[in-house]
Amino acid sequence: MIGGGKDAFIGAVHRIAQNIDGQIELVAGALSINPEVALASGKELFLADDRIYTDYKVMLEKEAAMPAGMRLDFVSIVTPNFVHFEPAMMALDKGFNVVIEKPITFTLEQAKQIQKKLEETGLILLLCHTYTGYPMVKQAKQLLKNGTLGKIRKVYVEYPQGWLSTYLEGAGQAQASWRTDPKKSGKAGCMGDIGTHAFNLAEYVSGLQVTQICSSLNIVVEGRMLDDDGAAFLKFNSGATGVLMATQIAAGEENNIKIRVYCEKGGLEWKQEDANTLLVKWLDKPTEIYRTGGSYNSSYPAHNTRVPAGHPEGYLEAFANLYRNFALTVRAKKNGEIPKEEWLDFPGVTEGIRGMAFVENVVESGMSEGKWKEFTV
Amino acid sequence: MIGGGKDAFIGAVHRIAQNIDGQIELVAGALSINPEVALASGKELFLADDRIYTDYKVMLEKEAAMPAGMRLDFVSIVTPNFVHFEPAMMALDKGFNVVIEKPITFTLEQAKQIQKKLEETGLILLLCHTYTGYPMVKQAKQLLKNGTLGKIRKVYVEYPQGWLSTYLEGAGQAQASWRTDPKKSGKAGCMGDIGTHAFNLAEYVSGLQVTQICSSLNIVVEGRMLDDDGAAFLKFNSGATGVLMATQIAAGEENNIKIRVYCEKGGLEWKQEDANTLLVKWLDKPTEIYRTGGSYNSSYPAHNTRVPAGHPEGYLEAFANLYRNFALTVRAKKNGEIPKEEWLDFPGVTEGIRGMAFVENVVESGMSEGKWKEFTV
Amino acid sequence: MIGGGKDAFIGAVHRIAQNIDGQIELVAGALSINPEVALASGKELFLADDRIYTDYKVMLEKEAAMPAGMRLDFVSIVTPNFVHFEPAMMALDKGFNVVIEKPITFTLEQAKQIQKKLEETGLILLLCHTYTGYPMVKQAKQLLKNGTLGKIRKVYVEYPQGWLSTYLEGAGQAQASWRTDPKKSGKAGCMGDIGTHAFNLAEYVSGLQVTQICSSLNIVVEGRMLDDDGAAFLKFNSGATGVLMATQIAAGEENNIKIRVYCEKGGLEWKQEDANTLLVKWLDKPTEIYRTGGSYNSSYPAHNTRVPAGHPEGYLEAFANLYRNFALTVRAKKNGEIPKEEWLDFPGVTEGIRGMAFVENVVESGMSEGKWKEFTV
Amino acid sequence: MIGGGKDAFIGAVHRIAQNIDGQIELVAGALSINPEVALASGKELFLADDRIYTDYKVMLEKEAAMPAGMRLDFVSIVTPNFVHFEPAMMALDKGFNVVIEKPITFTLEQAKQIQKKLEETGLILLLCHTYTGYPMVKQAKQLLKNGTLGKIRKVYVEYPQGWLSTYLEGAGQAQASWRTDPKKSGKAGCMGDIGTHAFNLAEYVSGLQVTQICSSLNIVVEGRMLDDDGAAFLKFNSGATGVLMATQIAAGEENNIKIRVYCEKGGLEWKQEDANTLLVKWLDKPTEIYRTGGSYNSSYPAHNTRVPAGHPEGYLEAFANLYRNFALTVRAKKNGEIPKEEWLDFPGVTEGIRGMAFVENVVESGMSEGKWKEFTV
Repeated sequence: MIGGGKDAFIGAVHRIAQNIDGQIELVAGALSINPEVALASGKELFLADDRIYTDYKVMLEKEAAMPAGMRLDFVSIVTPNFVHFEPAMMALDKGFNVVIEKPITFTLEQAKQIQKKLEETGLILLLCHTYTGYPMVKQAKQLLKNGTLGKIRKVYVEYPQGWLSTYLEGAGQAQASWRTDPKKSGKAGCMGDIGTHAFNLAEYVSGLQVTQICSSLNIVVEGRMLDDDGAAFLKFNSGATGVLMATQIAAGEENNIKIRVYCEKGGLEWKQEDANTLLVKWLDKPTEIYRTGGSYNSSYPAHNTRVPAGHPEGYLEAFANLYRNFALTVRAKKNGEIPKEEWLDFPGVTEGIRGMAFVENVVESGMSEGKWKEFTV
Repeated sequence: MIGGGKDAFIGAVHRIAQNIDGQIELVAGALSINPEVALASGKELFLADDRIYTDYKVMLEKEAAMPAGMRLDFVSIVTPNFVHFEPAMMALDKGFNVVIEKPITFTLEQAKQIQKKLEETGLILLLCHTYTGYPMVKQAKQLLKNGTLGKIRKVYVEYPQGWLSTYLEGAGQAQASWRTDPKKSGKAGCMGDIGTHAFNLAEYVSGLQVTQICSSLNIVVEGRMLDDDGAAFLKFNSGATGVLMATQIAAGEENNIKIRVYCEKGGLEWKQEDANTLLVKWLDKPTEIYRTGGSYNSSYPAHNTRVPAGHPEGYLEAFANLYRNFALTVRAKKNGEIPKEEWLDFPGVTEGIRGMAFVENVVESGMSEGKWKEFTV
Repeated sequence: MIGGGKDAFIGAVHRIAQNIDGQIELVAGALSINPEVALASGKELFLADDRIYTDYKVMLEKEAAMPAGMRLDFVSIVTPNFVHFEPAMMALDKGFNVVIEKPITFTLEQAKQIQKKLEETGLILLLCHTYTGYPMVKQAKQLLKNGTLGKIRKVYVEYPQGWLSTYLEGAGQAQASWRTDPKKSGKAGCMGDIGTHAFNLAEYVSGLQVTQICSSLNIVVEGRMLDDDGAAFLKFNSGATGVLMATQIAAGEENNIKIRVYCEKGGLEWKQEDANTLLVKWLDKPTEIYRTGGSYNSSYPAHNTRVPAGHPEGYLEAFANLYRNFALTVRAKKNGEIPKEEWLDFPGVTEGIRGMAFVENVVESGMSEGKWKEFTV
Repeated sequence: MIGGGKDAFIGAVHRIAQNIDGQIELVAGALSINPEVALASGKELFLADDRIYTDYKVMLEKEAAMPAGMRLDFVSIVTPNFVHFEPAMMALDKGFNVVIEKPITFTLEQAKQIQKKLEETGLILLLCHTYTGYPMVKQAKQLLKNGTLGKIRKVYVEYPQGWLSTYLEGAGQAQASWRTDPKKSGKAGCMGDIGTHAFNLAEYVSGLQVTQICSSLNIVVEGRMLDDDGAAFLKFNSGATGVLMATQIAAGEENNIKIRVYCEKGGLEWKQEDANTLLVKWLDKPTEIYRTGGSYNSSYPAHNTRVPAGHPEGYLEAFANLYRNFALTVRAKKNGEIPKEEWLDFPGVTEGIRGMAFVENVVESGMSEGKWKEFTV
């Protein structure tokens, strides 16, 4: 693991997600650029002393030289956005599969370089768009894919948060500070941090791709340097249209990502606050409540469910589903086996490139006086 | 009553709304342009034979000549959009107060003429934006007005319906046919029919006015002549921004109008499906559930509530609130009394003009290649 | 109308319920035992001066002598429990159909006398168990009746209120005072006031009858003279069992009556807080959400629905459904027509007798040291 | 770990709960009485070959003889009810702390022996009443404990499941078979399996103890040998009363455990289906929605929360909270430190004895013709 020391948030989440299924063991880490934090964090996590590093480059060098049985199967990069690209490229160069927090890189161009590197090396990459790990999100995708509801007409996706309602970065809050700093976060604030999740969820569930975009971005909190609120109209490659809304200044909201898709015969609704429920609506029949663990679900949600219906699974399980599917695929590849299609259903570099393109396009459209912009990649 | 014969939908709703409080009696009607329907409907409604008319002009003439005690206090116009203006102008000319279904007229220009006529005559007009009659909508408005939540930053309003998911007008369905016909409905379809409700709700609850708009309208169902889906970005006079979504092709949705407003310290959420609940969210405190009938509510919702908390009040009561407040105001005026401020809280010609301006602006913006359009009135 | 003056609660509710459909006109009233209130209330309700009475006996005498066209079709009795029996008997004797607030009488014996009188006179009676007027309650009954869910196994019904959490009667609150006074309310407090509604709902929806009962009643608030809380185990004539809970000291609850019925293949859930929704649960399929106005509903809810799906109907509409069905039946009878079966679906004396038997049995069981008591009528 | 081989359900859940926080490592196991299953399961779980056992007695012997650094810190017993007591006693005798699935033993008498053994050895025991591990359950307990809501008056607890709606045991379904077999499950079926959870939740949240009980148990599915449905009236040591309902034949229900507690000034409501929400109701104020991760929560839920508000935590996290608190306490004890009070908040032998007493009392009361039975321990 690169990054994720004891003062970080997302690193701890990654470790829980790795731990849950008992299939992944953390054995080495360069957990912080602060050497003291790196050492202390490694000790807390029961790493062997000689596998606690204070420099990720050293770690990748040394670990690459280890014998096969001890060698890392993959490297997780959980640093801020601007420190994704270099460690990822080096890890791939050293022959390690890679897990990266989203957004995949700082720029679209970097994402394309990673794609090229993956093609050259044959290695694989997991990008942590966690929401696609929920069983009911997978069920939604399958219901749309198999055509039960008819052709998709409309996609609404929204991601309201409230935690940046005040000028937190002025108070030195760590999470807020790098996310609102263009040098660390990239071209977009809210749209990069959570808009990309909404965008990914829309494309994942619908199976469609955005081809045109018209956005309006705002900086609501005084003094902030990047957008903290915005919305976009979307056109998809099938002719369907959509609306995407993301905000971090919706005071009182927690993390309420939600998607609705309407088709010729009915629609779907899923929201993270009630993650184990998928509403399936019909033009002429009662709405149906699909639930995690239901015997009627398809093989995709079934594979990503751990406990019987009625025992809520949450964010950490969704995250663990990404890791488990990635690990199953890595192991299959290592063993020369063909991974099941359900295992391969995790976000990777393609989603990373789409996400970076979203950031570039949504920002450019936001600054434009024209309405529609081609979604370029 | 003009229009609203036995084959109409909204006329029956108006009559229930008039009846509920026992303060309004229907005594005369030109209920249909079809004389047979007009007569049969009048009989069914227990009208005196000599006050059942087959022509609204004749009715307004004759009723205007009645002695004071028998004379109509007001006229309700519940015809399709293109038959609002002329009967309204004639009714005002004859000295009757007027109730009109929304949208107020066929064009913005006509709405302005009605405003002028109202100013000249001193008569009053009720425009049936029903959703503003709900107690919890009124409570939302009061909470924002008194500043408890701080300055408004963001308004989301949406109105998804599904009933026009198929080409109903092709099958001759009466409700669908005139609403999708530009000659009867006006420049906009979905945006005129329900977008205006969403727009009105946003301006009513927030107390703000839209000053710029960027819209995207769609005709989703093949063969349809007017928009059946659309969305708009909004800028308000305070600097706040918003998103408005309205659609009639969200298969599986009923009539799910919903508004969310976010301010500096918290936010509000109300939706018609759960009309007696208002969520009040806070940055640092538990969300509060305000309920119709709660002892903590302000005088506005209290005045518009009929039964104790826990006995759900619905759409018809909200509608009846418009009529009751209008009737209380008409009576006060008649008696030379000053109406209470709670009574005056009903939509009128100002809202009608704003609504017609919305139709004009949202359609024009929808056709424009530029992003933002000044909201002109 | 007998009772229901301007200081009463339920009288106003009855009048709204009568008004809604424009089929019932209030023409005479003995609205209060206080002559001044009676007169003032009558004037406020636009009654003719000569039909405002200060004594119900005088009213019944005089109105009975009116010519056919002017004669009352029925009399509504909305007085406290202990003033139901005598006016009802006199009204029936004078040839008027009768509407009574529940519970039908003060004692079971009186209820049986009313039944006998109805049989003798051929008149009809409406007992206001409002909750059975909700469209989705009727849909629940039909789904159970037609066997879709298999045989009934379990019935849970509950009615939590919180308004008697303090010693309101000590402060002279009118509603609380008579309801907690054995001389005015009868043998039971909470069980008579709302337990009877829960009991009626259970028998109505399930189509079953209670045959054995085991109850536990409590007086929670110090100083109170009647039960304000309790629960009962139930055995039904089919072998199914149930649990009934009713309380008026659940601080923070409004009026949250709820029923769940489980059968061999699935179950039903309805609650008044979300009155337009009926959950239909299945052993092996997604739960279905039935909604008021849904095209899939049976003729019973359809007949009792006024507006399209998505426009919430509430308590007053449910109440109006009782009145409308009663009025349709009265009119059919008057015209020598056969009422439709959907019209006949309103609670009457049979439900009244069952309700009074419930009061007697639940109180007796509550005082018994034995567990099960035969439910005697 | 004793039990929990690859064909078991709850063993896998325990392992996830152990894994999540990276503080507990599974190093040895007697995972099945079937040696092949035991071996295969051990390999799958990456156990060292010499620590995979086919007999728990051998395991306890051998492991007890290991040097301090390698020695087990505790043993988890996840076998069916009738195989809890002996391994637990032996483990304690050998000096291991113990984790046991609920119910703690087969009989109340055995539970008392375990208590005695714990007192003698000074070892500690975790009993897996998972629902008390939810952050919002802990918040509920704290709100009641600190008196904010006033004195408790009423407790409703219910646990409806539907999975035993058919005669599953007749079809050889493993989970159903032992649970419905008196020789393996004990005196009670539904009441032992889930009624004990409801009972524990009621006592945990309220901080009260049941002193009297009146129950009614049913065998609904033909051929079944133990109760699959039942309810009980409860009296608590404070004078408060309650109702407990548990059923496994509520077709269409998943695992919907729910508790409501009403006090003088307000009430609480929590249900597992919406586990991250706690409703706090007030007599005179809007209901409040407390949420996992809220900054206003007490130190107990805060300690048991892993991710920020809005990222749902579920059943596995609740389970992991039990394990983490147990592990923190074991480690503190090992290190001679004083565990924090938040760590000590996990169910143990006291709860085990109360639960076994519940089984005995609820069954005895169910068979009695008298109403109230003293709750004896």
